[in-house]
Formats: sequence, C-alpha cells, structure tokens
Amino acid sequence: MATLVQKYGGTSVGSVERIENVARKVIEWKNKGDGNDIVVVVSAMSGETNRLIGLAESIIENPERKSSREYDVLVSTGEQVTVALLCMALQKLGQEAISYTGWQVPLRTDGSNSKARIESIDPENLSRELKAGKVVVVAGFQGVDDDNNITTLGRGGSDTTGVALAAAIGADECQIFTDVDGVYTTDPRVVKKARRLNTITFEEMLEMASLGSKVLQIRSVEFAGKYNVPLRVLSSFDEGTDNHGTLITYEDDEMEKPKVTGIAFTRDEAEVKVSNVKDTPGVAATILGAIADANIDVDMIVQNIGTDDRTDFTFTVKRNDYDEAVTVLNKLRETIGDDISISGDSSIAKLSIVGVGMKSHVGVASAMFSTLAKEGINIRMISTSEIKVSVVIDEKYLELGTRALHDVFELETPREMRA
Amino acid sequence: MATLVQKYGGTSVGSVERIENVARKVIEWKNKGDGNDIVVVVSAMSGETNRLIGLAESIIENPERKSSREYDVLVSTGEQVTVALLCMALQKLGQEAISYTGWQVPLRTDGSNSKARIESIDPENLSRELKAGKVVVVAGFQGVDDDNNITTLGRGGSDTTGVALAAAIGADECQIFTDVDGVYTTDPRVVKKARRLNTITFEEMLEMASLGSKVLQIRSVEFAGKYNVPLRVLSSFDEGTDNHGTLITYEDDEMEKPKVTGIAFTRDEAEVKVSNVKDTPGVAATILGAIADANIDVDMIVQNIGTDDRTDFTFTVKRNDYDEAVTVLNKLRETIGDDISISGDSSIAKLSIVGVGMKSHVGVASAMFSTLAKEGINIRMISTSEIKVSVVIDEKYLELGTRALHDVFELETPREMRA
Repeated sequence: MATLVQKYGGTSVGSVERIENVARKVIEWKNKGDGNDIVVVVSAMSGETNRLIGLAESIIENPERKSSREYDVLVSTGEQVTVALLCMALQKLGQEAISYTGWQVPLRTDGSNSKARIESIDPENLSRELKAGKVVVVAGFQGVDDDNNITTLGRGGSDTTGVALAAAIGADECQIFTDVDGVYTTDPRVVKKARRLNTITFEEMLEMASLGSKVLQIRSVEFAGKYNVPLRVLSSFDEGTDNHGTLITYEDDEMEKPKVTGIAFTRDEAEVKVSNVKDTPGVAATILGAIADANIDVDMIVQNIGTDDRTDFTFTVKRNDYDEAVTVLNKLRETIGDDISISGDSSIAKLSIVGVGMKSHVGVASAMFSTLAKEGINIRMISTSEIKVSVVIDEKYLELGTRALHDVFELETPREMRA
Repeated sequence: MATLVQKYGGTSVGSVERIENVARKVIEWKNKGDGNDIVVVVSAMSGETNRLIGLAESIIENPERKSSREYDVLVSTGEQVTVALLCMALQKLGQEAISYTGWQVPLRTDGSNSKARIESIDPENLSRELKAGKVVVVAGFQGVDDDNNITTLGRGGSDTTGVALAAAIGADECQIFTDVDGVYTTDPRVVKKARRLNTITFEEMLEMASLGSKVLQIRSVEFAGKYNVPLRVLSSFDEGTDNHGTLITYEDDEMEKPKVTGIAFTRDEAEVKVSNVKDTPGVAATILGAIADANIDVDMIVQNIGTDDRTDFTFTVKRNDYDEAVTVLNKLRETIGDDISISGDSSIAKLSIVGVGMKSHVGVASAMFSTLAKEGINIRMISTSEIKVSVVIDEKYLELGTRALHDVFELETPREMRA
C-alpha cells in the first residue's frame, strides 16, 4: 500500500476518450497489489489554454501582463474543467472520486499572478478524502494567494503542483505521466539509438531540464530535490502498470555512475558580442546590468582580455530576446564609448553532456572537444560545471554533434555493460 | 449617485465583441449623472454552458444528477470565463475592474448541487471594491456551500444572483439587461400590438413569470419581492442610458391599476385524466401521491363527482413528464382498481390573464370566458387566484385566444388612456 501522486498532462487528457483512458489507468494503479491511495493532478485539455488565451488576446494585448489577475481567473478554468470530467469518468467506472481546485486544497502561493510560487499546502483535506477511499483529482497549475485571488504557476506548472502535493502529503512517489515513456540519453528524434534511462540522479535531471530536455519542467525538478520526493516519468499511453519509466533518484553512489548519462541541447539561443570595450573597472557590470534591467536572461559569458586596454564580451541570450539585447547595447554607446562594436549570431545552439560521473572521471570534456573537432565542428563558447559541459556551436551542426557524442560515450549501451 | 447591480445574460455576452459592448455600456452607466457604483453580474457566453454539459454527457448519463458536485465544478467555469474577459475589456477602456467568482464573494448556498439556494452574501468585499472606484464583475449562477464545494443555482440563476447581490449591498436598483427591452402585455411574436409596460407590480410579475413569460426567472422575482429590491428589465442592445425598460414596483395603489395588465401563456403542458375511480376517502392522495413520488409537478387539478360513487380526476403536468405520468398511473391499477380509465392530451396550452386590478373589478373572468367562447374556443380547465385567471385550451387556439383577449382588455392602450 503506497500513496502515489500521478500527474497527467494536457495531451493525456486531450479528449473525452483520453480522459476515460486516464480514469481506467488510475483505477488500475489504485487496485494494484494491496491497493494504493491516489491523488491525480491534471492539466487543461490540450488546446484549451490556448483557446482561452486567444479570447483574452482578442480583447487586450498582452493580457498576461496587462490584466494578470483576470488572466489567471480565465486560464485556471481549463484545469477546473478537466478535474470535473475526470471525476465523472472515475465515478462512471464505480470509483469514488472528488475534485479539488487550487483554492479548495488550498494550495497557497505568493501574489505574483501568472507566475506565482507555491508557499504552502494544507494536506488535511486531501488526506481525509484519501482515508475515505476516494481518488482525489486536483487541478494543476493553480493556487490561491493570501487575499483569495486565483493565481497560476505559469506554463507547465502542473508538474510542480504534482511534486508539491507529493511533498505535502508525504507520498511515496510522484509519477509524471507524459507522451514519452521516460527520460532518454538524448532526444530520440535526433539520435535513433537514444536509450531510455531506468534511473537518473536528481542533479543530472536538473541539468538535463535546464539544458533543453523538455520531459520535466525545471521547477518541478527543483521542488522534488528540495523535498526529496521520488519522481518518476512514465508514458500515459502505455497499457497496464508494468512499465517503470525513469526514476529520478537521490542516491549518490558514484562508483556506479557512468561518465556521461545524457546529452541535452537547445536551439533557443543567440550569441551577442561587444568588442573594443575600454577595460575599466565596472564595465562588465554596466553592460550586463543594462541587459538584466531589460529583463533579459544571460546564460553563458566569456570575456577576452585584448590589447591596448580593450576587451571583448561575448554572451548568450534566449533567441527571442536577441533583438532587444542589441537595442539595449546600442543605447549603451553613450555611457561606455561610441567606438564599441556590437555583433551577434542568432543561429547558434547549445549542446551539453551531463553526468554525475564526470566528477570523478577526468578527460570527459577533452573527449567531447576532440570528438566535435573530428567532425569539423567549431566550438564558439564553453561552460562547465561539476556534472556538465556545455558548448555553443553553429546550429546547423547540432544533430551531427549530438550523434557523434552519443556514439563516443556509448550511451546506447546500458551502463553496466559498457567497456 | 446610485448603487446599481446590472445583470447581463448569455446572449448579451455571447462573443468578444458583445462583451466589449457591455463594457462600454457599463462605463456609460458608471459615469451617468454624478456617477454610480456598479456591480455587474454575468452569465456564461451563450452556448458555453451547453458545450460543457455536452462534454459531461459524453462521459456519463445525467451528469447533473449522477455527478452533481462535479457537474457544478464544470459548468461554473462558464461564468468564470466571462467575468475575466469583461474585466479585461473594462480595463482596456481605462476603467478599473475586478472579478469575483461565487466563492470569492462569498455567496453562500445550501449544499444542493445544481439547484442550490442562496443562504447568505457577505457584502464586505464588494463594498470595499466599490469604495475604491472599481466596477465589480461577479460570476452569476454560482456559489459555495459551507464545506467549500462549488454550487450552482440552476439554469437562469444569474438573475437570482443579481437580485440577491442588490439586496446584500443595498443597491438602489437591480437592472436585468436582456434581449427584450422590457416586459410586454404579452409575447410580441404572437400579438403584434403587444405594448411594453413602464411598470408592473411585483405580484403581477410573479404570476407572469410562473405562467410562462420568460423575461425573468421566477426565483429572481421572488427574491426581489422578499427583499423589496427595485427590479428593472432593460435591453442590452439599446444604445445609451436613456431607455427605462420596465420597472417592477411594490406600490399597491389599486385605483391606478387596470383590470388586466398582461397575458401569459405556456405550451409546455399536458392533460391527464383518470376516470371511473371509486370515490373513497384517500383516493386523491393515492393518485397524486404516486405522481409526486415520481418527481412530477402537478399544476391544475379538477375533480368531478360522478354517479355511482365514481369520480374523475383531471390534472395538468409538464409536457415532458406526460409519458411518465401515464406509466405511473397504469401501475396504480393494482391499488385503486383495474377498472379505472386513463386518458390524456399533450397538445394543450395554458392561457392566463394577470392583473392586480382584478381584485377590485368583478366580471374580468366572465369577460375572458365569453371572449373565448365567441371565438369558438372550448375551455377545458379553469384555475383562478386573486390576480390571475388561467384556462387550459387546445394548443391550436392559443394565438387566436391571446389576440382576442389582448383586444378585449385594450392592452395596446396605455392604462391612463383606456375607456
């Protein structure tokens, strides 16, 4: 007998038929072994959130910012519809079920509409319903602030809801059901030999998520790590309850770890270069401060010390912030000198290898660099941490580089069978 | 400076363009004269409630009964969408506005899902928002019970929400904006000469509503009467704020009253006759008790004492209950005798004249009967109260009878100009 939180995303509940399919799946899990207590978290039916946002945008530009309180009132109805329909489907199959909206739980957040952060969850209501034998179906992505305003956690927030509920009720596992059946060594659409991982460590998953793997929302992984919630990724389209997906683990038995666990990438990048900058104290702060003031996130940064007291800054930003970043920098000419030169490239990509085994294995980074060199791929920027190495390359080489690295680190071979 | 509650129905907010139109109208009323405080109550966009019910019905039969709690969670999202969109439209036009769902008000109801009754409304939140200069937009039709379950008031319940809010905040008037511009002497689609009434008494309106005039939901009229809320029916499609619609009044200056104020009718009727019933004590209770046990409402009842200790019962039910009523009666043969005879007619209609002036004017009923007789219309059943006379006739004569009565009681002439 275990307590499970299961989260089903928008595609998994995208039609009445799929909702009925989820209901059958939930009942199978509920009755598995000597029975389980189940809390289900669901997203809006796929397409519904976009439909609602479309209505809002036909009234006001940027409703998310200009009417953020009402935006949350509007889009939170998407999940409310799904919880009601899933409960009906469960009840039709003879399973007692009850729905909870965010405010009914209550799931308390701060007051930042459209990007609220969870502050606390009162587990009392949910525990009482579970004790009564009911499946509890909770609307993902939404909460309520201290003034009883409806809030939402931002896109993808249903994963976070699942993990936070699992932490609050002390669940044995939070299961994220999605349209893939686990976490892969890399994107199977790019590398056919990509292999599903049975386990991945929390730290690795966090890197994979922040480096472009879209299986889990990064905040949900952070949350899981913070509260030590065992997290599992499973396919909502598999039949039965025998598939195990990928479990995110918290053990740290380094001897067991392979050098490299997975390869993540993102095309959503752009490179900006400011050259011929006078190398005076505070100039980096001036440049990066102006970028930060414009609400643009900077990822990788490289500074080259040149000659004649001049220096270069190169950094990466999200691709859709590129134009604004260049505009901001041009305005800086008045402050830091009219002779700076600004250039950039928005057709770059970031390619990363991730693995906790890197900590204790030297030579992983150099193996990566030489493999890319052998394929004729120029590395434009490098960034490393204890468990990952990221490089910026031309976007056109992304697939080639990913496949080459997947081969050289033998990711298609299960770790225990590697040389 | 007045405090107004304005209710806009599903047709008035049926599209983004219409919501924007309502926003302009609300702002006109807010700025009229030396300014008004405005609470707006809205329904779901027309078609939305049916879409949601369609989703539910594709999962479970009779969701309203079999999953009534979840049914309310589902359908209450319709109004939640409208309040958010209307607030966005108001904000875009520079008017501060804030939305309230039923639970946020809070509007407390009993726990009868899908047909809840309002128990109390806390005016504090709404008053605070009004004081801050905001237009408050409240989701109609919904509330919350003592256990924080979402409830709905049943179809048309948004009118009731409007009246109840007006009572709670002590509004000067509750204005029901609809697709007609007031209450008419009878349905203008049947009688072209039908005339809009400037005023109608509360008692008359209650009779008109219960006798088939669909301008206002009967519960909202009852509520208005109970709390003495001045109620006005207006068209949401009229331009400007100069039309006065029809005001429901509470004065009772009988000298001013015309004999007949309006004519109401309903086609939604069926007649059931049980003949040759042994006339023993309790037999009426047996027959009507069985009908009531099947949740069938009986409207008019006539009993004829026949010969040989035999009696006849004739009564009317809603047309869509007709088949079940006959089935129930057939089962009764075992109890009250196999020799009873059951017959009926589902092509009948009920035609009623309404007017508080009847109290002090004799001969109104006989004028009605003779007018119908002159047109060759047979009266099958009669029911009277102090301020109305209803007759059951063949449905095919309904238009003819309505026009004849409209003429004979001079309803096309304003009351002060009548002979």
